[in-house]
Amino acid sequence: MAARIALYEAGAAPSFIEVDPKTKQTGDGADYRAIYSLGLVPALRTDTGELLTENAAILQYVAAQFPEAGLAPAGGLAQFQLQQWLCFIGTELHKGLFVTLLDRTAPPEAKSYSVAKGKSRLEFLADHLADREYLLDRFSVADAYLATVLNWSRAIPVALLDLQSWPALAGYLARMQQRPSVARALQEEYLLYTAELARHKSA
Amino acid sequence: MAARIALYEAGAAPSFIEVDPKTKQTGDGADYRAIYSLGLVPALRTDTGELLTENAAILQYVAAQFPEAGLAPAGGLAQFQLQQWLCFIGTELHKGLFVTLLDRTAPPEAKSYSVAKGKSRLEFLADHLADREYLLDRFSVADAYLATVLNWSRAIPVALLDLQSWPALAGYLARMQQRPSVARALQEEYLLYTAELARHKSA
Repeated sequence: MAARIALYEAGAAPSFIEVDPKTKQTGDGADYRAIYSLGLVPALRTDTGELLTENAAILQYVAAQFPEAGLAPAGGLAQFQLQQWLCFIGTELHKGLFVTLLDRTAPPEAKSYSVAKGKSRLEFLADHLADREYLLDRFSVADAYLATVLNWSRAIPVALLDLQSWPALAGYLARMQQRPSVARALQEEYLLYTAELARHKSA
Repeated sequence: MAARIALYEAGAAPSFIEVDPKTKQTGDGADYRAIYSLGLVPALRTDTGELLTENAAILQYVAAQFPEAGLAPAGGLAQFQLQQWLCFIGTELHKGLFVTLLDRTAPPEAKSYSVAKGKSRLEFLADHLADREYLLDRFSVADAYLATVLNWSRAIPVALLDLQSWPALAGYLARMQQRPSVARALQEEYLLYTAELARHKSA
């Protein structure tokens, strides 16, 4: 979803191919593991045919292909601050917290361990966003990523993690959800997700 | 250690200030939490006084400050492939695997969960490194990071994770440890670590 938001912000005309997270079959009938053996999404196939994986790399690639969209700082320290936030979101939030909480096969002890560590990270992020509209001075691909990750909190029992405990984060997510690129991506991914659930149920 | 290796490769003249991981006191007597509230290392103070955190950002910053050292591709798709590896190491290995395995407070279930997921990542990495000397065409800051993270395997019981199971990874680490910048950083960090243990024991 983060790449989808960034591509919409850039005004790009991408072809999306869905990967079923369970079967790893692609929407056009291929075995995704033959494309990327770990089976992780997203992967981006460039116009010259090369494969790029990992959110931070794909997001910065999209920003660089469409500089007029201003999705990443053009230079100076700000470009490293963007990398700092992409890295923070990828390691501390996405991998360190949400992947474990969203994984039905994760043992309860692994979930509690992730929550105990993750709360301080959310607190730190809430402090940063308390008086800011975006992570940097303006909307960037880091916001596309953060909106995606924070949105997953809706699928997590509030007893485990309740985003409302950090009003700055809940407010940020609500603002981001109003943004046309985010609203569109959310709606499209929601339809894909419900179709996937129906497919698995009937299988 | 990754930043240290990169700085040595760059021929930089940095000032290092140690942070005690337990007390969060710095070597010059400050409270590190007042500098970075999460207390995570590394943090880099630039010559203009700004603070940068997160390995991927610091490593790319160092590479950009010393372009003549060739620690990062200067452009093209390769610069995004560097970001892909930095992100992969940071999320899948550092955060997803090693942080949990090295954390004495992590419950055994959290460790097993990390190992089960992490093995496929190490397998993927071993495939990539089977016929390559470095992650990219030549040594880059991604190798500084990977050598650091794989080196932690020495502190993990082999029953939990044995790097020798992947000869390509064990061979890569052995090659990296021969590299002067890595050998120097390892030696210095080892002395700091043993001094830290002695300090905690006497406290």
